[in-house]
Amino acid sequence: MLLEETLGQIRPLSASCDAAAQRHLDSLTKPQGSLGRLEELARRVAVIQERIPPHLGAKLIFVFAADHGITEERVSAYPKEVTAQMTRNFLDGGAAINVLARHYDVATEVVDVGVDHEFVAAHGLRDCKVRRGTANFARGPAMTSAEALRSVECGIQLTREAAATNLFLLGAGDMGIGNTTSAAAIICAMTGTAPSDIVGRGTGVDDETLARKIAAVEDGLRINAPNPNDPLDVLAKVGGFEIGAIAGVILAAATFRLPMVLDGFISGAAALLAHRFSPHIRDVLFASHLSAEKGHRLLLDELHLDPLLDLSMRLGEGTGACLAMGLIEASVKLSREMATFSSAGVKARLS
Amino acid sequence: MLLEETLGQIRPLSASCDAAAQRHLDSLTKPQGSLGRLEELARRVAVIQERIPPHLGAKLIFVFAADHGITEERVSAYPKEVTAQMTRNFLDGGAAINVLARHYDVATEVVDVGVDHEFVAAHGLRDCKVRRGTANFARGPAMTSAEALRSVECGIQLTREAAATNLFLLGAGDMGIGNTTSAAAIICAMTGTAPSDIVGRGTGVDDETLARKIAAVEDGLRINAPNPNDPLDVLAKVGGFEIGAIAGVILAAATFRLPMVLDGFISGAAALLAHRFSPHIRDVLFASHLSAEKGHRLLLDELHLDPLLDLSMRLGEGTGACLAMGLIEASVKLSREMATFSSAGVKARLS
Repeated sequence: MLLEETLGQIRPLSASCDAAAQRHLDSLTKPQGSLGRLEELARRVAVIQERIPPHLGAKLIFVFAADHGITEERVSAYPKEVTAQMTRNFLDGGAAINVLARHYDVATEVVDVGVDHEFVAAHGLRDCKVRRGTANFARGPAMTSAEALRSVECGIQLTREAAATNLFLLGAGDMGIGNTTSAAAIICAMTGTAPSDIVGRGTGVDDETLARKIAAVEDGLRINAPNPNDPLDVLAKVGGFEIGAIAGVILAAATFRLPMVLDGFISGAAALLAHRFSPHIRDVLFASHLSAEKGHRLLLDELHLDPLLDLSMRLGEGTGACLAMGLIEASVKLSREMATFSSAGVKARLS
Repeated sequence: MLLEETLGQIRPLSASCDAAAQRHLDSLTKPQGSLGRLEELARRVAVIQERIPPHLGAKLIFVFAADHGITEERVSAYPKEVTAQMTRNFLDGGAAINVLARHYDVATEVVDVGVDHEFVAAHGLRDCKVRRGTANFARGPAMTSAEALRSVECGIQLTREAAATNLFLLGAGDMGIGNTTSAAAIICAMTGTAPSDIVGRGTGVDDETLARKIAAVEDGLRINAPNPNDPLDVLAKVGGFEIGAIAGVILAAATFRLPMVLDGFISGAAALLAHRFSPHIRDVLFASHLSAEKGHRLLLDELHLDPLLDLSMRLGEGTGACLAMGLIEASVKLSREMATFSSAGVKARLS
């Protein structure tokens, strides 16, 4: 019901604001277009907000943690317990996302959407656990349809709450040992691409593990036969709880007209699901970076998104989203704070 | 004498710190190498400082302004007065570099190294004026050898003063109508590349102006015959005062082991001069971004530098350097603040 309601509220953006936003940028003391993609960012935020210049506000990244039954197939370089251990690390402030969030003044909310561990007295952890990890999708569906829906609605609900504050930018990151295998399976299911063209080395697996990972995705797709036209079915058959939650965040971001900053491979797979729910979500999406994970370029091409950064990162957690938020905020500040040719008494071009 | 002394103090970096810096990064709670180029940045700063993890401190960008006699050849889309007007805009805080410097907490120092204007009571402007603009290098040398030396020593002197503070990152930007023509001439002189392969549209000139710009560089090289093995001669014949000053900053940064963040096309041309003075300066250089200006890729290839950002910017002022400083600072914070596998109780890889 929450999902239906959300989908019913998504409207295409009006492009009417776009030309006016560019005219405003052209009035500022710099050669026209010389800020390159920073101008594109400021213009897109203006169109999303329907406001010139756009307003500023808080920046928030949800970090969704969940476990994956597919780890039984030995597809990761790390043991499954690392999901819970890293979740604790997020709460203690020692992970990469914590450091970057402090540096870029981004708030984080750590959400347990399906970790295979009972956290006791974990201050700051948001409990939205759907179940203690998915089932092994190489042997059967990862979750039930009801669980898939719950994970998506978790993301919607959290975004609704956040949207009631003075929010400017929203992002979502992930933690889940085994989740690049699940994300790859989603991408293959949705696009029909062969697993060998999408499955990558994730946290850095060796050749043998990579071969097992490809086989696991092939098995999962054959055994579950997910319906590419039904994103909830794809999520249930080969997905993960954190991927469903991120898809929910994206859908809700579109209804609240919040610029939504994708992280890397995992949030990209979630965006592919969200896009099948409603193609208009693309209007609010920003691709933060090109991940070093093999299938990410194809994924972004599928969504017609051009990444802002290319730093060979492949960590997840929302780290790429955090870096991009710094750039998007800078672009909005430029459009808000720069002097105009007339206010600064600077001559415009000769012609 | 200051230049000779500086060149005598530049030593190659010892790479002994590099492996230890990577081992430290590998102990942090993330898959090895998963922070991509951010790890490279933290490692390079550690090697420059010989300190693991590196220390943090102030970030400073010099913005050098100067005028160019080559504007007589009508090579720019903007009138020459804009150099002085934009210098005033820097002091008033309304330019793009001011907004970005505030966003990234970077100090700026605006330096008049040769603007064709007498500023009266310009609070905050550093007066190092060599002369009121260069001569038109399409008709004769841009400046005398003594003036070229003075511009380089201005950059050295300012960097010496700054190095006495708790400086972490140094950068240099430029303002000078006509200076992409001068930078292109320097690159052609130093590399032997044809002007038509280097000269670009600068602030955004039309086809006719572009043709005049190429012809002006061709004329300047033919008439002045700069000696590619003598960077001071190249600077004097076809350079600019702000380009000389930036070259001086780079040389001094190398002596003080300060990470030096290049901006775009203009500071790149200055780096090419500095590199001819002493190839070891490359050890402290960081290429912030790939400019949209035509010859920038070749220039960076010549210096074996890989830009961090590719945002189609072409503004100068230090704007690209400012964005990159945000990334470099983030990388150092990651290496300083992240928990280790053992401190956080996170299991390392399976194998």
